[in-house]
Amino acid sequence: MIPAELIKKKRNNQVLEESELREFLTGYVKGTIPDYQMAAMLMAIYFNSMEPDEIDSLVAIMLESGDRMNFSHLDRYVADKHSTGGVGDKVSIILGPLLASAGLAIPMISGRSLGHTGGTLDKLETIPGFRTNIDLSEFNRLVHDVGIAMISQTDEICPADRKMYALRDVTGTIESIPLICGSIMSKKIAEGIQGLVLDVKTGNGAFMKTKERAQKLGAALQRIGKSFQITTDVVYTSMDQPLGRYAGLWCEIQESVDGLHGKGPEDTMIITYELGARLLLQANLAQSREAAITLQKDLIHSGAAYDKFLEMVGAQSGDPEVFDNNSEHHGAHFEQIIAAPLSGIIQKMDTYIIGLAIVELGGGRKKASDLIDPSAGIEFYHKIGAEISKGDTIMRCFNSNESKLEGASRMLTSSFEIGDEVVEHELIVQ
Amino acid sequence: MIPAELIKKKRNNQVLEESELREFLTGYVKGTIPDYQMAAMLMAIYFNSMEPDEIDSLVAIMLESGDRMNFSHLDRYVADKHSTGGVGDKVSIILGPLLASAGLAIPMISGRSLGHTGGTLDKLETIPGFRTNIDLSEFNRLVHDVGIAMISQTDEICPADRKMYALRDVTGTIESIPLICGSIMSKKIAEGIQGLVLDVKTGNGAFMKTKERAQKLGAALQRIGKSFQITTDVVYTSMDQPLGRYAGLWCEIQESVDGLHGKGPEDTMIITYELGARLLLQANLAQSREAAITLQKDLIHSGAAYDKFLEMVGAQSGDPEVFDNNSEHHGAHFEQIIAAPLSGIIQKMDTYIIGLAIVELGGGRKKASDLIDPSAGIEFYHKIGAEISKGDTIMRCFNSNESKLEGASRMLTSSFEIGDEVVEHELIVQ
Repeated sequence: MIPAELIKKKRNNQVLEESELREFLTGYVKGTIPDYQMAAMLMAIYFNSMEPDEIDSLVAIMLESGDRMNFSHLDRYVADKHSTGGVGDKVSIILGPLLASAGLAIPMISGRSLGHTGGTLDKLETIPGFRTNIDLSEFNRLVHDVGIAMISQTDEICPADRKMYALRDVTGTIESIPLICGSIMSKKIAEGIQGLVLDVKTGNGAFMKTKERAQKLGAALQRIGKSFQITTDVVYTSMDQPLGRYAGLWCEIQESVDGLHGKGPEDTMIITYELGARLLLQANLAQSREAAITLQKDLIHSGAAYDKFLEMVGAQSGDPEVFDNNSEHHGAHFEQIIAAPLSGIIQKMDTYIIGLAIVELGGGRKKASDLIDPSAGIEFYHKIGAEISKGDTIMRCFNSNESKLEGASRMLTSSFEIGDEVVEHELIVQ
Repeated sequence: MIPAELIKKKRNNQVLEESELREFLTGYVKGTIPDYQMAAMLMAIYFNSMEPDEIDSLVAIMLESGDRMNFSHLDRYVADKHSTGGVGDKVSIILGPLLASAGLAIPMISGRSLGHTGGTLDKLETIPGFRTNIDLSEFNRLVHDVGIAMISQTDEICPADRKMYALRDVTGTIESIPLICGSIMSKKIAEGIQGLVLDVKTGNGAFMKTKERAQKLGAALQRIGKSFQITTDVVYTSMDQPLGRYAGLWCEIQESVDGLHGKGPEDTMIITYELGARLLLQANLAQSREAAITLQKDLIHSGAAYDKFLEMVGAQSGDPEVFDNNSEHHGAHFEQIIAAPLSGIIQKMDTYIIGLAIVELGGGRKKASDLIDPSAGIEFYHKIGAEISKGDTIMRCFNSNESKLEGASRMLTSSFEIGDEVVEHELIVQ
């Protein structure tokens, strides 16, 4: 195999054989194919995409590059939830313990903040002591004992993805459907799950800006799930505005705890229950969507879901006592109010800019080595469709590094439009 | 500047500012932008091309990365000829000395064999002792004293191009008009020339397979020449069949010497005279195309052009005596005849395959470290439009490594089509 010829083949929009992809990818993992040839290949894939067969090969090869969990000894339904990434999206942190309390086993490998989107791991790590860097044998034991563990990608899981993902991030090749599919599905299949529900985000704060692109991605993910014998449901939800009342780090953990206490924001809970219902139906723990939603509400109101959350936090060395008196923990030292410059109705929110403002506040990384400010975040007082008066607080941003506050505030000031139209925001995109 | 953002900008088909391109390219030359980010950028340029202003910036930045010759002290017209690459194209070796004997100064930086195309340097180096690795001060002196020198790209000339070219070769990003333009024109402008004639090849043995693509490249090259105050003429010639009777290494030097003796193949001499006429007209050494062609024929028949060739060979440490008894030098040890499988008219020749067959014979490199067999080559007995009988010799291939002969012969057997149609080959494409 001449690597440059394979790059040209993809560049010329021809289909790569599985053997060709395997040689290229395994060569890359071994280091015989250098980063620059993979970078050219990734950009060629970005432009010419891949056929379903090629994507299946890609997933299989990435999967085979590492270990695969096996939970077939459990008598529980083993499942996971994945979101394609958004702003203020803390659903995993609520839904994981909730489903575990319903009797599912949830082996969840989560991600970090990426670009303008928040990362579950970064949020969880604001809990004092909480460990996400857990090896596969401990992961296995935690899922067995607790019913849930939320960990970071280890060296053992899909090393091809780790290496490719880092390269995609610096070569402008993130937003490619086959590459997104390869990255998500290889890791999810490696978790040894039977069922999966995908929250495919669409809108200005999502990687897929349009409903059509999101549906294309969702259909591709679902098709791959089927190819690998994983029952896969897809829900499309809007990222045309942030999810929930807060976006940031510790503030999202607090909001998740509110959710587990039955006091979560409506949009967040609607999506949580919708996604959860799909897995409860898959697991045969409910016979209808309505029954599945009722079951989840009961588990919240009984405290079972929150107890499972505390159990998980403890099992991963986090300090559950922080939730007893959370007003003291990670308090932001500085804040800035963003007020309405005129009266009217909020027409639009630029969720991408809002996500970047969180990074600017210190709540995300501009480069991999950046430290994160756990206190950084934004509170949303009003969202799309709200009628507001001049001077009303629209948002409040906060952090513990005053020098970063002004830049973020400026970004937020330009992140919404006020007008006369009566507008509605569609949360679940049909 | 975040390099990944510039890659995304080009990926999204936006125009890069000169300052952005400069930061990216100078960072690449210095090593702060790694190969993998340049590889992704090159592939994005391959797909989205560049606007004229971007191409001019690219050329200027590549040019500024190294030294620029200055021949303004010469009282001769300083010019060069460049071909976009073909099979059997030995025109530079005839035309360079011919124009120098007419009084032009020709500072020619030539290239090596690339893919299926032959390289002037590799051909010249089959002359015993001939040096092409010459530094700029000697280059300057040779052009001053002899009127011509044919050298390889030095470290001092366009280091950005050297580094980018090597990367393009292994990342499938050669066939991009803006990148071809940048590579050719930065080097030609660095030669300090006043005039340039470009032989833009088109057809199945060219990098530009269609007349439209060739004309697009030619127009872009000419526009850049104008931007940089270089009088630039373009001639489009066919690569739908090899040029001349021979293609290979030493055999092309022999054929060039035949040409300088007035015994060259008709197609090769037509193109030589056509290209030469453009530069003689530019230099005001002829008042009409016809007069320019007559002048060249006179310089050939008087022996002046051949004498200049021998002078150049001697000045570059080559042994001119090899031409006194050339039958002994680089004799091929093995040969194979390719005969017509049926009677009819040659309809087509696959010049790309013929070029690859030369590589297979040992006349080109599959990787940069491959040694070249100077005796390798092909003789063409008949070309497009020739009426032939079953069993007639169509080609003869030869080399000094028998193990490589059969593979090449097989390629050549499939490199032509015989049919009934009366066909003609258009040498100079209008």
